[in-house]
Amino acid sequence: MTRFDPSHALYVDLYQLTMGQAYLRSGQTAEATFSLFVRNLPPDRGFLLFAGLEDVLKYLEELRFTFGDLDYLRSTGQFGDDFIEYLAKFRFTGSVRAMDEGTAFFANEPMIEVTAPVIEGQIVETFLINQVNMASLFATKAARVVKAAGGAGVADFAARRTHGTDAGNKFARSSYIGGFVGTSNVGAGARYEISTIGTMAHSFITSFDSELKAFRAYADAFPDSATLLVDTYDTVNGIEAAVTVAHELETRGSRLAGIRLDSGDIGFLSRIARRMLDDASLGYVQIVASGGLDEFSIEALARSGAPIGAYGVGTLAGVSADAPWSDAAYKQVTYDGRPVAKFSPGKATFSGPKQVWRCFDARNGIVAHDHLTSADADSPEPNATKLLNVVMRDGTVTGDLLSLRQARDLARMELERLPESVLELEKPMSVPVRVSDELLAGSPGREKM
Amino acid sequence: MTRFDPSHALYVDLYQLTMGQAYLRSGQTAEATFSLFVRNLPPDRGFLLFAGLEDVLKYLEELRFTFGDLDYLRSTGQFGDDFIEYLAKFRFTGSVRAMDEGTAFFANEPMIEVTAPVIEGQIVETFLINQVNMASLFATKAARVVKAAGGAGVADFAARRTHGTDAGNKFARSSYIGGFVGTSNVGAGARYEISTIGTMAHSFITSFDSELKAFRAYADAFPDSATLLVDTYDTVNGIEAAVTVAHELETRGSRLAGIRLDSGDIGFLSRIARRMLDDASLGYVQIVASGGLDEFSIEALARSGAPIGAYGVGTLAGVSADAPWSDAAYKQVTYDGRPVAKFSPGKATFSGPKQVWRCFDARNGIVAHDHLTSADADSPEPNATKLLNVVMRDGTVTGDLLSLRQARDLARMELERLPESVLELEKPMSVPVRVSDELLAGSPGREKM
Repeated sequence: MTRFDPSHALYVDLYQLTMGQAYLRSGQTAEATFSLFVRNLPPDRGFLLFAGLEDVLKYLEELRFTFGDLDYLRSTGQFGDDFIEYLAKFRFTGSVRAMDEGTAFFANEPMIEVTAPVIEGQIVETFLINQVNMASLFATKAARVVKAAGGAGVADFAARRTHGTDAGNKFARSSYIGGFVGTSNVGAGARYEISTIGTMAHSFITSFDSELKAFRAYADAFPDSATLLVDTYDTVNGIEAAVTVAHELETRGSRLAGIRLDSGDIGFLSRIARRMLDDASLGYVQIVASGGLDEFSIEALARSGAPIGAYGVGTLAGVSADAPWSDAAYKQVTYDGRPVAKFSPGKATFSGPKQVWRCFDARNGIVAHDHLTSADADSPEPNATKLLNVVMRDGTVTGDLLSLRQARDLARMELERLPESVLELEKPMSVPVRVSDELLAGSPGREKM
Repeated sequence: MTRFDPSHALYVDLYQLTMGQAYLRSGQTAEATFSLFVRNLPPDRGFLLFAGLEDVLKYLEELRFTFGDLDYLRSTGQFGDDFIEYLAKFRFTGSVRAMDEGTAFFANEPMIEVTAPVIEGQIVETFLINQVNMASLFATKAARVVKAAGGAGVADFAARRTHGTDAGNKFARSSYIGGFVGTSNVGAGARYEISTIGTMAHSFITSFDSELKAFRAYADAFPDSATLLVDTYDTVNGIEAAVTVAHELETRGSRLAGIRLDSGDIGFLSRIARRMLDDASLGYVQIVASGGLDEFSIEALARSGAPIGAYGVGTLAGVSADAPWSDAAYKQVTYDGRPVAKFSPGKATFSGPKQVWRCFDARNGIVAHDHLTSADADSPEPNATKLLNVVMRDGTVTGDLLSLRQARDLARMELERLPESVLELEKPMSVPVRVSDELLAGSPGREKM
C-alpha cells in the first residue's frame, strides 16, 4: 500500500501548471498581482474573520518541487524539459500584502494580495484559496458559537468529524482565534500550544461492571481534573454516582472538575444536575454540555438560563455546517503593470492592486464603513485605518506577524467594534464598503455598489 | 514559524489518552470490539458508499508515538511514566473486519468492526471516524453527481474549496470511487494514479492583450489537449475565437479538445456553442461546463438536453454541501467477551459484534433488504451475501484489498443493484435493514426497527 508521496507543491490544479508552460513558451512571464477575496458573504454572515495567513506564508517560503514531483510530471507526457527545468529551480520570489489574522472582512475586500512573476503567482492559487477559505470559515463559525455561549467557555471537540486531518488541525487553530478556550485534538494542542481538553467516552463506562466503578477508576487516574460523563445509562443515577465520587475525592483533598451531559434535554437535565450538585455542597463542580451543539442551540440554552459552565462543540462547528463554503476567489488584477479584469456575468472583478481602509464612528469606536481604494491612494478620510500591510518581500517574510494569541486578541477586539446588527446569528447586516471612484472607473463591467 | 510537528498518532482526542491511562492503572485492559456505523443517513441520502478503508489500515499498521509526541505528552503533566512507557511501545495488535470500499451501506450497519485490547481500540477512534466519515460522504456525493450527469464525464475541480488538503486529496480518491473520471488535483492524481484534467483560468486570458492571443499561446503549448475557456469577456466572441484557433490547429494536424463555459446561463450558452462549433465543422470539439455545479443543477441541464460532454465539479461536491456531515459513530459493543451498550436517548446501540447480509430479489438482481445479525450467526436466508470480512489480523493486513479501480467498479455495480427509489436525489427511500431477534434481545434500550 505504499505509494509515491507527492510534496505540498503538487497540491495544485493541473491548469496552473499547463498555463505555466504556456506562459513560459510564449514569453509571457511579467509580474502580475492577484487579489484573494470573497465575492459574497455566505448566508447568515455579516462578516468573516480572516485566518490562514501563517500557513500561506510558510507554504510560500518552503515551496519546492521535489525530484519525485518532477519525475511524476515528466511521466505524464504533458510537460516539456523546458518547463520541468523551470519547476526544478522554482522558488516563490514575490511579495505579499495581507490583513492581520483575526481581522473582520467583508465582500470584495482583498485579505491577501500577491505580486509575483505571473507563473509563480498562478501556481500558488490552489493552496492559498484552500487554506484561507477554510480557516476563515472556521474562525467565523467559532466566533458565532462563542458569542452565543455568553460567558461560558467553548472547546473544540470536532476532530472526528472535520473533513480530514488538515481540517481538524486547522479548525483547532482557527476556532482558537475565534475565541474557543481549547481543543480535544492533542496534536493541534501540541502544534499550536493550545490547551487540550477532554472528559471520557461512553465506552469507558461500559467497559466496567458499573458506572460507579468506571467513575472511581477515572478519578483515581485524574483526581484533580476529572469530568465524568453521566448519561450512559440513566442521567439522574449517573449524577448521583458522580456526587459519590466527588465526596470521595474530597476526603483525599481533591475536587471533581465537572460532569458532562451529552444527550437528552440538555437544558432540563442541567437544571436537575445543578440542584443535585448544589444540594450535595458541590457548587464548584462545573456542568459541561456537548452533543450536536451549534450557535443556535447554544444560544437557546444560554437564553433559557441553563446553568452550563462550558460547552464542547464538534461536528456542526467543525464543518461550518450552515455555511460550509464561501466563494473565495483569487483573481489577477494586473499584468505587467496594466490593470486587468474579467467581465463574466456575476464574476466581474475590480482591476488593480487595492487597499482596504476601516473607518470608525468617533463617538463610540464602532465600525462605520470601509473604503476600497487602489493600493497607492491616499487615506480616503482622516483616521481611516489601513488593513493591508506588506508581510512578505522577495519571497521572505518581513517583520513580525501576529502570534496566535495576538490574532485571538485582535479577533475579540474586532467583534467588540462591529455593530450588533452585523453580529446577529441570523440575517445580519454587513458593513458598507465604499468603492473609490478611481477604482470604479478602472473596472468596466462593475457597477457602483 | 517552525514548530513541533506531531505525528499522526496525536490526531487523537485527549480523552482517548486519559481513558487509556485510567484503563491501564485500573488493570482494565481486556479485549473489546468497536463498531463503526452511522445512526441515521444524512438528509436526501437513501444509501452511503463506503470509502476510507485503505487509509484506516495504513494508519493502523504504521501507528507509532514518536519521541517528540511522547515528550509533548510528558510535558503536559497529565500522564505518568507508566502510561508514557506504554505509548512508547504502542503497536496496534488488533483485528479488523470491514466491508469492501465501494459497498453501499445503510443506517446501523457497521462498515468496520475493530477487535483489540481496549486501550488500542479506543486510541484509534478519532482517526477512524474522521477518515471513513469524510471519504464515505465524498464518494456518495460524487455518485449522485455522476448519476445526474447521465453519460457525461464528471471531473473533480474541488481542490481549492475543500476543507484543507487532506480533504482535497481524499475527495479526489473518493469521487473516483463514486464514478468521476479524473481530478484537477495533480498530487492526488500522482498519489492515486488517477487521470489529471485541466483547462485554463480567466487570469491566463487577461494576461494577454487579446483572448485570441491567449488561446493561440495555449494551443501552441498543448496542440492536442487544449480546452479553451470562452467566457472571460463575451462568450459568443470567445467561441468565435476558439473556432479560429481550432481551424488553425487543423492546418497543423491537431484538434482542439474542447471549450469551457464557466458562468451565465450554461444550458442556453451550450446550445449556442454547439451550433457555432457544428456550423464550423467542429463536431468533435467537446463542451465542458463548470461553475458552482452540483447534482441538482447538472440534472436540470441533462434533462433539458444541453449538449454538454463533460462537467467540472468543485465546491458544492467537495464539501458535500447539502450533507457536510453524518453522525458516524464508533461504539464499543463488547468488553472482555461481554456484550455492552449505552442507552442514552437517541444514541442507544446494539451490543455485540455483528454481520451484515445483503439479500437480492432473485427475479431482477436488485437489493431487497439487508439483515443485521450477530457476527457468528448463520446466514439468515439462502443466497444472502456476507458484507463484513476479515481485512486485518494481529495488526497486519490479511490478503488483498480491492484496488482503487476495483472499488470504483464495485460502486458502479452496487448502484446498478439498488432500487431507483433509493437512488433518488431528493427524499429517497432506504433499504430495509432487518435486525435479528437475537441481536434485539441482547440490546436493551433499542426497539424493533
